[in-house]
Amino acid sequence: MTQNSDERALDYNHVFAQAIDRLHSEGRYRVFIDILRNKGMFPNARCFAGHNGPKPITVWCSNDYLAMGQHPDVIAAMEEALHDVGAGSGGTRNIGGNTHYHVDLEGELADLHGKDGALLFTSGYVSNEAALATLGRLLPGCIVFSDALNHASMIAGIRHSGCEKRVFRHNDLAHLEELLAAAPVGVAKLIAFESVYSMDGDVAPIAEICDLADKYNALTYLDEVHAVGMYGPRGGGISDRDGVAHRLTIIEGTLAKAIGVMGGYIAADRTIIDVIRSYAPGFIFTTSLSPVLVAGALASVRHLKASSAERDGQQAAAARLKAMMRDAGLPVMASTTHIVPLMVGDPVKAKKISDILLAEYGVYVQPINYPTVPRGTERLRFTPGPTHSEAMMRELVEALAEIWDRLEIRKAA
Amino acid sequence: MTQNSDERALDYNHVFAQAIDRLHSEGRYRVFIDILRNKGMFPNARCFAGHNGPKPITVWCSNDYLAMGQHPDVIAAMEEALHDVGAGSGGTRNIGGNTHYHVDLEGELADLHGKDGALLFTSGYVSNEAALATLGRLLPGCIVFSDALNHASMIAGIRHSGCEKRVFRHNDLAHLEELLAAAPVGVAKLIAFESVYSMDGDVAPIAEICDLADKYNALTYLDEVHAVGMYGPRGGGISDRDGVAHRLTIIEGTLAKAIGVMGGYIAADRTIIDVIRSYAPGFIFTTSLSPVLVAGALASVRHLKASSAERDGQQAAAARLKAMMRDAGLPVMASTTHIVPLMVGDPVKAKKISDILLAEYGVYVQPINYPTVPRGTERLRFTPGPTHSEAMMRELVEALAEIWDRLEIRKAA
Repeated sequence: MTQNSDERALDYNHVFAQAIDRLHSEGRYRVFIDILRNKGMFPNARCFAGHNGPKPITVWCSNDYLAMGQHPDVIAAMEEALHDVGAGSGGTRNIGGNTHYHVDLEGELADLHGKDGALLFTSGYVSNEAALATLGRLLPGCIVFSDALNHASMIAGIRHSGCEKRVFRHNDLAHLEELLAAAPVGVAKLIAFESVYSMDGDVAPIAEICDLADKYNALTYLDEVHAVGMYGPRGGGISDRDGVAHRLTIIEGTLAKAIGVMGGYIAADRTIIDVIRSYAPGFIFTTSLSPVLVAGALASVRHLKASSAERDGQQAAAARLKAMMRDAGLPVMASTTHIVPLMVGDPVKAKKISDILLAEYGVYVQPINYPTVPRGTERLRFTPGPTHSEAMMRELVEALAEIWDRLEIRKAA
Repeated sequence: MTQNSDERALDYNHVFAQAIDRLHSEGRYRVFIDILRNKGMFPNARCFAGHNGPKPITVWCSNDYLAMGQHPDVIAAMEEALHDVGAGSGGTRNIGGNTHYHVDLEGELADLHGKDGALLFTSGYVSNEAALATLGRLLPGCIVFSDALNHASMIAGIRHSGCEKRVFRHNDLAHLEELLAAAPVGVAKLIAFESVYSMDGDVAPIAEICDLADKYNALTYLDEVHAVGMYGPRGGGISDRDGVAHRLTIIEGTLAKAIGVMGGYIAADRTIIDVIRSYAPGFIFTTSLSPVLVAGALASVRHLKASSAERDGQQAAAARLKAMMRDAGLPVMASTTHIVPLMVGDPVKAKKISDILLAEYGVYVQPINYPTVPRGTERLRFTPGPTHSEAMMRELVEALAEIWDRLEIRKAA
């Protein structure tokens, strides 16, 4: 049956230990850095790495992009919900866990994206997995056209849909059209892609992908998790900025990054929300989001609909940091967004730089290794926000320049 | 290719609308009841069903089994965390989202189950899906032996593992042994089962299943989500009560039911925790639990390790309600636990009873229909806890008896 199907009893621990050894030998065994943020003072935090009590650090890799997880309105709304209804929801959405907060937030998110409805999930990962898997299963024979750099959660959803998958080269419209044209006319088609690709910081040509979807009668599924709250006049994402939200079948977002809390969602027309709500196991069979989180997300979404100060501050910080890194000859990648990736190209070196930054400079930035990015493109990924000061940036860039020299890493040309 | 592969353009809305029509025609289209709990007064709550403002109700179907979601220690811990570190974690466990709260709670949960380590997930559903899928993929050729009534999340995890699955009849040791004996000796084997089956309220023979696992060199995976906090001297679940926790390879639990908050976890030896942590996409690629939730769960687990008052109160309430239902001739099912299911056997009638209870009696209990339970076994499922008074039970049983008469449903013999 397999290589293990002989008559000797299997040694499970040996199999598991080998799996861990593979990670060590590839230099990508992960050690979690144990931190606590200092509320109201983000990006300042404390790190529990050693045994001498917490050490002050500056966080440079948080996805709480706009520091909304520290916003007074968000904290106040969560505190109020905590005192009004308690900690957890106590059930699935169908069995006791549908609170008025959930209903309100879904209305707010539908409005944010100009859709009929929205549906909350426990995370963005679950949103993608559950929505894509369910859509695919409901459309017999559906072919999913998937961008080569789509997130692991989308890949999981597509795999679990049982659909045939055709991968188009990243943001390559010609390749996408070639694949669409090759598929039979009457077959269901779904194009799944992201707006901001979080590890490179580039942006999809949404309008052009919608043109192709129209031409070939395909549904579109857009992951906006690294854009919601941060782009568009009301924070509806790149599709809001580009004025194309109405052209997309489904927009997926998260409450855990720029919104600053936790959870995920999709927005779409009424019928699609109803089928996902009714058929997705990852939605049906799980306790709904805590009303405390929902209340916080509601306050955050409402704030970001009305205020552009956080978005403007983030863009200014990202532009400044990129310019400073370029001036220092550091290999900052060609991001057009708030994401500032610095190419290293080796997992052991990426980890080493990160370790030195934490130990010697109190700078916390995680190395990004395979499987999050392709092997050979290991990098450091900085997420400057409205609360990262110019002084913090100067310290960071000086530290990086010193480490780059010390480790004799080739700088940008 | 399929029935849709002709030359006409596909009408997606028609496909989705048909999927919804199927639910209506089977009487299992779900309408979410919109509620808010009254903190400190659980099971009292408010319902937003009509247009005349919220209406007071009594909740009889919450999985906040011990009302810990309202416990002062839990609320205080969450409030403190909210003010100390803010709303969300801001990242995955590996990238900025590993807080000291997470580390502490994993230590507490490992201790609760007498294991080396524990690992938090965003939900119990994700725990099961991610852990089972990853374990199976790490063990080439593994065969999973799965109880026929396992939860949807375990079924999803086993499917996603790609392993061969052999389903044994519910709690049937002879059938399980027959299947184990038929598998090759050297092949990896995993027995996946639950302790308390939540829709029937019966309990697995854990020790005997561990005996079979020893005999056939199989790993064991026990879902204790409906038992954690509620059974055993410290609330470690049925495996704690029966003194067999040390015999299980992996124990899975939730923070969203008796613990009263949100999230899920596994507890196991160090190597297994390390491989799941390192290889499970559903763990790696998702924002970690909000530290606010983790702080609340930590307070709840600690409280329930030391206090048996909630457990005793729940058992007394369940025994009382079962006796009162039996005395009234209502068809209460043969549960040996805190779960009190009342058989109806028809989805339309189950929904009708639930609707009348809410509209006329202010009693909230959700009908449990397919796919949560097999067709033809539709039921109402009551979860009395330490805060459900005898007066509430009297009102409930009188209401049920009246409705049973009105709808001419056959009573228990």
